[in-house]
Order: sequence, then structure tokens, then C-alpha cells
Amino acid sequence: MASQKAWAVVAGVGPGTGASVARRFAKNYAVALLARKPANFEPIVNEINAAGGKAIGISTDTSDGKSVKAAFEQLQKEMGGASLAAAIYNVGGRFVRKPFLELTDEEFESGWEANGRGAFHFSQAVLPLLLKNTNAEYPPTLIFTSATAAMKGSALCASFAAGKFAMRAVAQSLAREFGPKGVHVVHAIIDGVIDIERTKEYKFDHPEAKIKPEAIADSYWYLHTQPRTCFTNEIDIRPAVEKW
Amino acid sequence: MASQKAWAVVAGVGPGTGASVARRFAKNYAVALLARKPANFEPIVNEINAAGGKAIGISTDTSDGKSVKAAFEQLQKEMGGASLAAAIYNVGGRFVRKPFLELTDEEFESGWEANGRGAFHFSQAVLPLLLKNTNAEYPPTLIFTSATAAMKGSALCASFAAGKFAMRAVAQSLAREFGPKGVHVVHAIIDGVIDIERTKEYKFDHPEAKIKPEAIADSYWYLHTQPRTCFTNEIDIRPAVEKW
Amino acid sequence: MASQKAWAVVAGVGPGTGASVARRFAKNYAVALLARKPANFEPIVNEINAAGGKAIGISTDTSDGKSVKAAFEQLQKEMGGASLAAAIYNVGGRFVRKPFLELTDEEFESGWEANGRGAFHFSQAVLPLLLKNTNAEYPPTLIFTSATAAMKGSALCASFAAGKFAMRAVAQSLAREFGPKGVHVVHAIIDGVIDIERTKEYKFDHPEAKIKPEAIADSYWYLHTQPRTCFTNEIDIRPAVEKW
Amino acid sequence: MASQKAWAVVAGVGPGTGASVARRFAKNYAVALLARKPANFEPIVNEINAAGGKAIGISTDTSDGKSVKAAFEQLQKEMGGASLAAAIYNVGGRFVRKPFLELTDEEFESGWEANGRGAFHFSQAVLPLLLKNTNAEYPPTLIFTSATAAMKGSALCASFAAGKFAMRAVAQSLAREFGPKGVHVVHAIIDGVIDIERTKEYKFDHPEAKIKPEAIADSYWYLHTQPRTCFTNEIDIRPAVEKW
Repeated sequence: MASQKAWAVVAGVGPGTGASVARRFAKNYAVALLARKPANFEPIVNEINAAGGKAIGISTDTSDGKSVKAAFEQLQKEMGGASLAAAIYNVGGRFVRKPFLELTDEEFESGWEANGRGAFHFSQAVLPLLLKNTNAEYPPTLIFTSATAAMKGSALCASFAAGKFAMRAVAQSLAREFGPKGVHVVHAIIDGVIDIERTKEYKFDHPEAKIKPEAIADSYWYLHTQPRTCFTNEIDIRPAVEKW
Repeated sequence: MASQKAWAVVAGVGPGTGASVARRFAKNYAVALLARKPANFEPIVNEINAAGGKAIGISTDTSDGKSVKAAFEQLQKEMGGASLAAAIYNVGGRFVRKPFLELTDEEFESGWEANGRGAFHFSQAVLPLLLKNTNAEYPPTLIFTSATAAMKGSALCASFAAGKFAMRAVAQSLAREFGPKGVHVVHAIIDGVIDIERTKEYKFDHPEAKIKPEAIADSYWYLHTQPRTCFTNEIDIRPAVEKW
Repeated sequence: MASQKAWAVVAGVGPGTGASVARRFAKNYAVALLARKPANFEPIVNEINAAGGKAIGISTDTSDGKSVKAAFEQLQKEMGGASLAAAIYNVGGRFVRKPFLELTDEEFESGWEANGRGAFHFSQAVLPLLLKNTNAEYPPTLIFTSATAAMKGSALCASFAAGKFAMRAVAQSLAREFGPKGVHVVHAIIDGVIDIERTKEYKFDHPEAKIKPEAIADSYWYLHTQPRTCFTNEIDIRPAVEKW
Repeated sequence: MASQKAWAVVAGVGPGTGASVARRFAKNYAVALLARKPANFEPIVNEINAAGGKAIGISTDTSDGKSVKAAFEQLQKEMGGASLAAAIYNVGGRFVRKPFLELTDEEFESGWEANGRGAFHFSQAVLPLLLKNTNAEYPPTLIFTSATAAMKGSALCASFAAGKFAMRAVAQSLAREFGPKGVHVVHAIIDGVIDIERTKEYKFDHPEAKIKPEAIADSYWYLHTQPRTCFTNEIDIRPAVEKW
């Protein structure tokens, strides 16, 4: 049964993890879905509303502080006096894989824009709202969707790894600053290929070699329900058959 | 509602995490509880049976291969043809904190006995049973209760840290060998003081500074329910107010 | 005795580690010292030249690609046909320590500018030169001066930690891409307060609680001399009495 | 030129790293070489003595506390009033690689015996001697030869990984307890195949794909010379072409 009193906000909504997270959190909350292009959030916004949930989409570029500010002004009007229960930062940005000496400034910077700067703007927008909600049934939660690249800087992946390492630093710092204030911050290391339309071309021998985005969403929901005496701040998630 | 068809086994059952894990898994499975001293498992065995669940206790010293072998022979008789759904290794052993040059051989060895050797014997006993059960509703699961000492060797803690580091090595190795075979192996880093009778003397400023064992049990149950496309192999768990 | 045939370049030269590294490498190489403000490199440039070595200073903002490009055009003219033996990226940037919600965009970004973007520009400039010099007595070397903040995101330190985590990602990625091509890349975790004029105010109980910059320089020189069969890619350096 | 006043002790001497470390430290110190079988230390003892250095060999099983005790009683007689400058624990033990369920108790235990228990006995024997020598030219040093298996528990390698993880725990704990007392403790991650007679069968495409033991010895010597304001507690060492 969904309470319409509280909201969840998901940044980075496309056909994969973001949409699944939105669907899962929409079972309990109204959801605000942020993406650069409306085409990315419209199908899932419509789907949730058609199914009796409540969803809105706001076109937002999280790497741009002004865009994030405008998005949250709009969101707070929509929310009225309702509280923010959860915030998921699921923006991954481009995955640039090429020789280091061939990287353009813009390509290198893209990892930071999505995973560092964007995480910063989003966190500064949601944390004041989450801090107001520490008496809710479930502790207010901020989850960052990260990747194996947060743990290991592989050859040819300097841009993405720099961004994901930075995201992990921000997540750790926020967990330590805001945990004692009642906000649950999680760095989620998604280690594997997500099973969506776009990744159909990636063929594996094993039928369960890709991660189901619904399962990630379920894990995120579980993390959100953990009580204050039992916070998980870092979790890894991968298919059983993944090499790591 | 407990299915009597499948079992869970918990090694290291006392008044804290072990008892809570036993209670939680007993909602769905028959449970076998292992501890050196019957006094440690008897109260919880009685409690579960009185509440309509099914529990047995077997006196076992996990650091002794023969004792583990005997325990599992007895357990398999009890199980009949039933399957093993989950195994939790929750043996912590003594926590010895003293100057390194004052450690006796026996004190130093105690960290290994509980966390290395014991984990080995238990894993060798449960894995063949878990491997038979990969078509169950939830993937068969092996969880190791670990500690912050698995991540950092602090001064005066060489024995415990050596044991927990070794446990983490075993957990990682098993996750990589048996994950592709359908068994879910988890290293759970419990970072904080468990809130039980014995730790009442540890006073903290904050009322929620200790970890509730029921919340750990709940996390373990959640981990058990993760599908094969979404395994978590390492998780940390701590109170919101913990310094780390 | 300095060979005038090969050069070393040090970015981030002030009174501490940068100056000591410059002095040490100037025993064997001509050195080019980069800093935003000439006042930062002039004393050490003069000192090295007065002592019979060869040093030049180039005013450079490593976070600005054009500035780095101009600096290396000037440097290559100075070098003539000489080769580049070593490059040390020692730019730390501002250390901002404040509540996350009080961070300005500019303050948050400063960690990345110095440690991410600056490391990128510097690396793109030096790697083509280092790659030409893989037959030298000592493998060509690129060292990043990093910090404990590269390993742990502490509360109130999101900006600096994000930058240093990103720097570590870049260093790892470059070590993996360019190691097999003969370039030695090192991430050096300096864990402690450097013993310089500016840190005199930091009083410790122990007389050796601060890191001597000359000792860091000596370690960097040693790393530079490691042969291709024995590369160290990550090293930590701290005072004996440091807590960690 | 060897000073006969101070000694170094190396446990785990065979034809590879141990012999090279012995040769290097014998340039400055008298050396005591420990190995189970005299055949392992005799050639290098003879070589060092023939070259004008001073070396003795003592047959020792480091996993046996009595054997270690007897060895150090003999050693201290040889040393007379001389001091101990450095101790290198280079015992690796068997590398068992096989399916976990096929491991015998003895095979699993072997990783601990060499890397955990042996490191304990050796450390308890050398630390009291090292602590007497903190005013020497170079801080007294205890180095553990470790491996990549200390950082990652790979499939089929549970025994070796458990031992090396435990060794890392002990090294960290000792570094934190004895660093402030002036003893330099190092965990050295040797990541690659050592280039010795026994590994000739391992063929790689690249001529420098194996680690030269002399280069490891040189790194160990350098670590020994680091001053108290600049201790390295963990270092990795690998061939430039190694995948990691």
C-alpha cells in the first residue's frame, strides 16, 4: 500500500536500473524522476501513473547546479508539505573506453561531471529534505549507483574510474557526516552488465550472466528499510556467474 | 509459516546474533543450531520449538574436524531427505586484546581456530549439501559473520584480526568458486557492538549506538532471498552513529 | 653529479615536498618546476642553479589545459633534444574541510581541479615524452603525490577526498596501460603532516610526528630507480608515530 | 663492507628471494639464515662467507614455536652482544591450488602454518631484539614477504589466501603497535612469478615478465633505510608487464 505522503526522487532514469528503482519505490511513495531528456522518464512516469501510483518527471542536468536547483524548486511545489523518504542517484554518464593519450578534455571530464559534480549537486539538494524526515518509518536514504570501476582503475578507463572513485569518496564522506544525523547513505557497487534492451547484443554463455534491474531495485528497497542500528554503507551486487 | 522440507544450520549460537538468526530462519526452515556448550543453544531451541517451529541443537566444536563431521552425520539423519537452504557461520571465538609480545601461542592461535579452521570445517560440511539445492526458491546461501577486524589489523589485535582476515579470504575464495555453481556466499562485516545482555556494560551516549541482532538477522534473511542475477558477496553493517 | 642530458619535471612546487623532490632529482637531471605563482618556484630554481645544477621555472595552472600546453611547449624548447626521465605531479590544491551543505560549487570543484583535471593534463603532456625514453638507465617514471584521503572519505572532506580518490583511479589506470610500455607509474599515499614552515603551528607530542619532505623525495628517487622487473605502483609513507 | 656489529635474520631461504635478500643485507650485516632444510641455506651461507661476509644457517621450522625458540637461542649466542638490525620473514609455504571440497585438513592448514603461525613465532622472537636497537643508523626493520593472495581470495586458493590475508593482518597490527616504538614493519606484496631456476618452466611472451629476486632484495634494503619520519608500511612490487 503506497503512502502518498512521502516522496522518493530518482536521478538518472532510463530503461534500466532507474526505471526499476522507480517502479519499486512507487509502490510506497510518490516518485519524482529526473533525466536530461523527457523521453527517458516519460514511459515510466506514464506507466506508474496508469498503474495507480504517482509519478512526475523533471528534465534535469545533474551536472549543472542551476538545473538541479530549478528541478528541486519544481519538485518541492509538487510535494507540498510532504516529506522526502529516499533519493537515488543513478546517473552513470558516458562510459568512455579508449587509450589515455586519445582522450579529449571533454571525454575525460565526462566521468567527473556525471559521477562527481552531479552527485554533489544532487546530494546538496536532497540532504536538507532527508534531514527533515528522520522520524519516518524507514530512515531517510540516499543511495548512489556505482560500479566496479569505483574499486579498480583499469587500463583505458581513466575517465569513468576517476568519476566512480570520486563518487565513492563522496558517498563515504556523506555516510560519515549524515549517518549520525539519521540519514542512511549507501554506495552500491553494481558489478556486471544490466539486462536491458540496449545490452541484448552482449551475449554470454550463461543465461543468468546479466543483472536484472528489478533485483537491484529490490536490494535498494531493502537497504532503505534497514533500521538505524543496522545501516549498510557499502554493498556489492553481481550475477552469480560473474568473474571478479 | 515454516516449511519443514528445508533446513538452515547456524554455527555459533549464543544470546546474540546466532539466536536472532536462528529465530529468523526458523520462520521458514527447520533449524539446526551448533555450539560448543548445550547451554548456549538450549534456550533458543526450546523457544523455537515452543513457538511451533522446528529446531535441534548439536554440541559441536567447529575447530575440530571430527566434531564437525559427527555433528553433520547427526544432522543429516535428522534431515532425512530434506535439503539444506542456508548455512550461517557465526563463530567468533575469543577476542584477545593485549600486547603482541604477551600473547601466548594458544591466545594467538585462537583467532585462527574460530575464524579460519572452523570456517573451513563448516564450509566443507555444508557446501556439498548446499550444492544439491540450487533449484530451491532462494539460492542456497552460506554467510560468514565477520567484523571490522577483517579489514584492518589494529594494534593489540593481531590474533583476532588474523582470524577475521583469513575468514574473509575463505569467503571470497568460496564466493568465486561456488557462485557460478549457484551457491551464494557472503562475507558480512559487522562493525559495532551487538546489543545483548553481555554488552550492557558498554555505555554509549547515543541510545542506538549498538547493533540490534534482530536487524542483522533480517539482513541475513534478505541476502538469502537475493536471486542468482543479483548476489551480494560483501556487506557492511553498523549503527548509524558508529565512527568508521 | 647531474647529467644535463635528461630532465625531470615537477608540478606543484612550494616550500615542502615539491622543493625537496626538485633538489633530489636535480642531483641527476635538469629540472623544470611548475607552479601557478613564480614566487613558489623561484627560490628553489635559484638555489639549484647556484649549487651548480640546472633548473627552470614555468608558471603553470595545471587545471587549465592551455596553460599546461604552453608550459610544455616552452619546456621542450629548453630541453632541445634531451629526454624526460621523470615527472612528479605534486599539486594538492586547497584542503577544504567544512560541512557538506556549506560547500560552494567552487569549493567542491577545487578537489577535482587540482587532483583530477590537473593530473589528467599533466599526464597527457608528460606521457608522450616518457614513452620516448624507455631505454634509459632508469625506467621513465610518473609519480603522483597523494594522501590518505585517497583511501578514505572522511566526514567534512568530500571535496578533497573526491579529488584524491580520482587521482588514485587515474594513477591505477595509467600504471596498467603504460607499465607494459615501460613507464613506471606510482600512486604515493603521503599520510601525515609535512614538516615545513607553514605547519610549524601543528604541535605534536612527538618530535618526529611530521614527515620530512627530504625523506619523501628520497623515496621518490628510489622508486624511480626500480627496474622494469620490480615496479612499485602504490606505496604509503607516514611517520613512525602516526595513527592509521 | 659488512659491519660485524649488527645482524640481520632471514627466515625462508631458498634459491629465490631469500637468497637475494641474504646477499644484499650481508653487504652491511652479519646474516643468520633460517630454513627447514640445511640444503636450502648452505649454498648461500657458503657463498657469503667465501665472499668475505659473515653468514650462519640454522635449521628451523618457523611453524613450531620450540624450533624457533631454539634457533634464536643459538643465534643470540652467535651474536654475542651485537644488535639485530633487520628481520625478514620470507616463508611462503606450499601453494595449494585445488577445489575447496578436495582440500585435506593438512592442505588447508598449511597456508596458516607458514604465513600465520610462522609469522607469529618469528615476530615474537625478533621484536624484543629489534626494540633494543632503535638508536641504530637505520630503524630496526621487520619485513614480511607477502603476495597478491593477501589482497584477493581467488577461487581454488582458499588455503594460501587465508594464510596471506592473516599475514597482512599481523603485519598491520605490528606496524601500528611497534611503529611508535621505533620498529619499521612492512607488508610487501610480491605480485608475480619470481625469476629462479624452479620457475624456468613458466614461459611468458615478454622477457621481463618475471620478478628478479635481486630487485626485491634491493627494495627491501631501501625500505630498511627509510628514516622514522617516513616509514612505508605496505608496498607492492610487480613486473612492468604484469596484469593486475
